[in-house]
Amino acid sequence: MTDNPFTIETGTAGITDVPGFEAAGAACGIRGPLDGRLDLALIYSPHACNAAGVFTQNDVKAAPVRLNQEQLKTNKVFHGIVVNSGNANACTGPQGMTDAREMATLAAEPFGLPPESMLVCSTGIIGIFLPMDRVAKGIEETSAKLSSSSEDGEKAALAIHTSDTISKTVTARFQWKGDTVTLAAMAKGAGMIQPNMATMLAFIATDAQVDRTLLRKLLVEAVRESFNRITVDGDMSTNDTVLLLANGASEVKISNKNPELIELIQNALSALCLQLALMIVGDGEKISKVVEICIDGAHSHRKAEKVARAVANSLLVKTSWAGNDPNWGRIMDAAGYAGAGLEEEKIDLSYGEFMDRNKKPVAVLENGIPLPTNKNGWLEQVSRPRFQINLHLNQGKGRCRLFSTDITDKYVNFNKTD
Amino acid sequence: MTDNPFTIETGTAGITDVPGFEAAGAACGIRGPLDGRLDLALIYSPHACNAAGVFTQNDVKAAPVRLNQEQLKTNKVFHGIVVNSGNANACTGPQGMTDAREMATLAAEPFGLPPESMLVCSTGIIGIFLPMDRVAKGIEETSAKLSSSSEDGEKAALAIHTSDTISKTVTARFQWKGDTVTLAAMAKGAGMIQPNMATMLAFIATDAQVDRTLLRKLLVEAVRESFNRITVDGDMSTNDTVLLLANGASEVKISNKNPELIELIQNALSALCLQLALMIVGDGEKISKVVEICIDGAHSHRKAEKVARAVANSLLVKTSWAGNDPNWGRIMDAAGYAGAGLEEEKIDLSYGEFMDRNKKPVAVLENGIPLPTNKNGWLEQVSRPRFQINLHLNQGKGRCRLFSTDITDKYVNFNKTD
Repeated sequence: MTDNPFTIETGTAGITDVPGFEAAGAACGIRGPLDGRLDLALIYSPHACNAAGVFTQNDVKAAPVRLNQEQLKTNKVFHGIVVNSGNANACTGPQGMTDAREMATLAAEPFGLPPESMLVCSTGIIGIFLPMDRVAKGIEETSAKLSSSSEDGEKAALAIHTSDTISKTVTARFQWKGDTVTLAAMAKGAGMIQPNMATMLAFIATDAQVDRTLLRKLLVEAVRESFNRITVDGDMSTNDTVLLLANGASEVKISNKNPELIELIQNALSALCLQLALMIVGDGEKISKVVEICIDGAHSHRKAEKVARAVANSLLVKTSWAGNDPNWGRIMDAAGYAGAGLEEEKIDLSYGEFMDRNKKPVAVLENGIPLPTNKNGWLEQVSRPRFQINLHLNQGKGRCRLFSTDITDKYVNFNKTD
Repeated sequence: MTDNPFTIETGTAGITDVPGFEAAGAACGIRGPLDGRLDLALIYSPHACNAAGVFTQNDVKAAPVRLNQEQLKTNKVFHGIVVNSGNANACTGPQGMTDAREMATLAAEPFGLPPESMLVCSTGIIGIFLPMDRVAKGIEETSAKLSSSSEDGEKAALAIHTSDTISKTVTARFQWKGDTVTLAAMAKGAGMIQPNMATMLAFIATDAQVDRTLLRKLLVEAVRESFNRITVDGDMSTNDTVLLLANGASEVKISNKNPELIELIQNALSALCLQLALMIVGDGEKISKVVEICIDGAHSHRKAEKVARAVANSLLVKTSWAGNDPNWGRIMDAAGYAGAGLEEEKIDLSYGEFMDRNKKPVAVLENGIPLPTNKNGWLEQVSRPRFQINLHLNQGKGRCRLFSTDITDKYVNFNKTD
């Protein structure tokens, strides 16, 4: 095995890069105005697929989240996903569940399939009923337009945008005994981003042959260090969903009998999810910076994660980043209130290069004592659009890496109303 | 007992309203420029005082916090508090402890007192050593200027400001068998406000006679529902401190033998702390609204508090308040990710009048179902500078009330640099 046995590319057509998958996007006016903005996407595989999903841990789950959880439990074979943007179908009571089921029915009908073979997602404003007449028209239109062309893949990726400014698409490929296995995905993010066990919306397709149990295992592992390690505003959505469909078209069978192949697809899938997560965080609402927060030496991984999240979500830390201000005192303050029992006199803190732990970082604190002579170095690092914070607690072996963003005045203005 | 057996007034002289207490403020240039800005306060009682304190729960505690905790454990008699603004003396290693001790020594010397009789507080930027020569001059100046005049009380209250725009002073008085008992306080707040077991800085004086154990009990109870129930930005400071000094000058002795008197002073102290807390939250950095969040019907008080804090600290909720937007979906989202196990279909949500639970609120959700016909009523409530959110989970008897603020674009710009 070489170091990089798979290729990975961002900004691709996404889903339609995978043999056997089709997609389409339509503009049906879910937000109200019939302004031509794409707001409904359909993903379809004529081959039956195995599927896996991870979802928001929020107690308040949108209707489509509850529907998907139910369908993944009771059903075994899936053919696609129907997604709308502009309306979350969350906090919509029993009517919301009826509408989500109706979306599945409408999406399955043209193919003579049962409703439970279609998964359903929604994203947008909470608490408003879906305009089902418009949704129905959009489903009708997309099911007629479906194709495996790049253009339709891109349209589907556009149709799931809310406040996203770029499409998040990634394609990974690897070879196995002369066959090519493809994984490709489209995702959306931008606001209400602090996923936990899931992200906003990400849809991944592959032509590998993988059974349901293994598919779920691969997905959970990939999500853990990617979508679950980003935060823009600390808000976990009601709709966070990652779905993975495998249609088996490559005829490369992934099973426990072949650990090398499992490792290969796991690495490709994890890299693909990390790329999507970085694209989501990098397109956070009105942000100007992405910061990699590396916590080391905590008593446990769990405590390291607590410290990372406290730093990543501190308003005072995030606003200082927006101002290119190496106000490391706010980092220490946030780390201190995480409740991880850290000992100030053991702490090493430094600023480094984004996603490059080999380059020597600029020290801020050593054993809890400030090194103000390095101030110019701190300033230089935090002035960059991407940088790294290393916080070593020197207590144990717990680690966590998290990606966060600054918060700008523009973020606040942007979110004053929907 | 009447309903309101004590008087309470805000915007007073503060500390010097209490017989036997003196105060002064000086401008000694701790921030750097000698611009005449008051930055050092001294509170002094010639009578020996009993004292109680509650402090930040942050693992990273400023040097003066650690010094006070030590002194309150080992020492029994106190004569005053010396406070500087402009520098937190936090994350300053062993030098910070030396400087805090030196502040106590310098403040005690002019009165021939031992250093351990003076408590010490600092507030301001983290990670910079105190300019001790300037601090020394300020202490010298204030100890010479001390008086019980209103003017000097007001100067002391001004000297502890950081980004505060108004002084927070409150005075409460009650009668007991012909004697008057006074409690008075000064506090500072503004940013890095989500106290837990303490607030930013609050100094309370009383001329009641109270032993140490009871004094602490009274203070902890008062802090629980006041300073520990406010949040501006969700950041808990390294320096949060509430100190209470009792000099006994009124000769009204408070003891367990007289429960009625204990109830009286507890009510007065709790009301005083709540007023200070409301003044702190109302003067939050660049805020435009204060919102009272009332959670009822949780499985436990602890779970109610979790939900209240999730709502109170959600960036998306806070930005929607800044925009007068009744975006209650964001409230539900935040409540849902608090991890309190809430059941969507049981939830009642309404907007009401600030600190007035008797006036009928405007319903938003009943049993989890939106009532969009009330939309104009929601809009009217959230457009006010003060309003109330009632979230009834209908699961149990857990309750929590918390005061929060909006977050504005001005907050972000204000905090981009120190």
